[in-house]
Amino acid sequence: MSQSAHIARAAADSETYFQVQRFYARQMQLLDDGAAEEWADTFTADGVFAANAAPAPVKGRENIAAAARSTTERLQADGIVRRHWLGMLDVRREAGDLLSVRSYALIVETPKGGQAGVRMSTLCEDVLVREGDDWLVRERKVSRDDLG
Amino acid sequence: MSQSAHIARAAADSETYFQVQRFYARQMQLLDDGAAEEWADTFTADGVFAANAAPAPVKGRENIAAAARSTTERLQADGIVRRHWLGMLDVRREAGDLLSVRSYALIVETPKGGQAGVRMSTLCEDVLVREGDDWLVRERKVSRDDLG
Amino acid sequence: MSQSAHIARAAADSETYFQVQRFYARQMQLLDDGAAEEWADTFTADGVFAANAAPAPVKGRENIAAAARSTTERLQADGIVRRHWLGMLDVRREAGDLLSVRSYALIVETPKGGQAGVRMSTLCEDVLVREGDDWLVRERKVSRDDLG
Repeated sequence: MSQSAHIARAAADSETYFQVQRFYARQMQLLDDGAAEEWADTFTADGVFAANAAPAPVKGRENIAAAARSTTERLQADGIVRRHWLGMLDVRREAGDLLSVRSYALIVETPKGGQAGVRMSTLCEDVLVREGDDWLVRERKVSRDDLG
Repeated sequence: MSQSAHIARAAADSETYFQVQRFYARQMQLLDDGAAEEWADTFTADGVFAANAAPAPVKGRENIAAAARSTTERLQADGIVRRHWLGMLDVRREAGDLLSVRSYALIVETPKGGQAGVRMSTLCEDVLVREGDDWLVRERKVSRDDLG
Repeated sequence: MSQSAHIARAAADSETYFQVQRFYARQMQLLDDGAAEEWADTFTADGVFAANAAPAPVKGRENIAAAARSTTERLQADGIVRRHWLGMLDVRREAGDLLSVRSYALIVETPKGGQAGVRMSTLCEDVLVREGDDWLVRERKVSRDDLG
């Protein structure tokens, strides 16, 4: 959705904004560390990961974990360290204990012995659902900037 | 101003720091989405946008919107997605309801079908003025790192 | 330490998380501005800076200042503006007034008249100790992603 449509919703308060920052930091570190199962557990059991680079959405923790494991193994085989930077978070309240978050995600890669660089720039649109004082992703849609 | 001069002022509290992060996320997303008028509304009516890359400061919402529209149209014609990342915020209280913010801004660009990359690194120095529980830019000075 | 081991500790509350964000923004700006002594003062008197790129840890404020001064002078001689972006902060409480922070640090460089780019991507692991409502680094370990 466009930023204009997104901001029609009420902005999140400071405590929520902080929790979402904290959640993303931990979530991205788990992914970049190759902790595929713990990464998948940051989604709801029926969580959906959609991307404009993928033919179809990945659904459910097992499939999300499998996709992460496959990517991790490929990066390790290629000797590449990948880091996800999520930032510029616009956090909005939906009905009930739901948040809508529109953010930027930058993927930085470094080959062993080589030069670090930006691999991809993307837009990340999440629906988060409350889990105690933390959050889980119910739906994620990642749109790579290089794809029309 | 130098960081040393900047930090002579009192650091902002957590609620203010959060509000400024939230403000910048929304503001940069509006700019990157090409919402020129909504972007201009994040400045005061007599807001000033100065840059070491520009011959003279841009003054007032109409001129700020026109400049954004012109840049947006050029990027669209060139098939480039631009994203502004603002970070490393040092937020200081000035007299009254004013803030002085010194931050870094990174401009990431991706050509359609091409490789994402850092386009520019800059220093961003803002004076923000309170507007309810949100903020507006009264003065912005952007200094590109590549220019002496 | 791995992210999994790190997150076994209790996550920091919002006030602490904000203080750490604020601390890092100021600390990195001091370093990038070449304020070597003020940078060194963001470490404890016996602070330690270790890096997988360095033969041995740098210990104590005087040595930390000297190392920063040396790097600053080299960058100035080469006409390079360096900016440290620290982000994706995972902040954990250790015993007492100690924090363990695992974050990403990106080093962006711009030669005068030239093209900005990512110079290095690193993992930053800090132990912070409370100093009033602010923090000091007692131990820092920086691991460049390009080094095995």
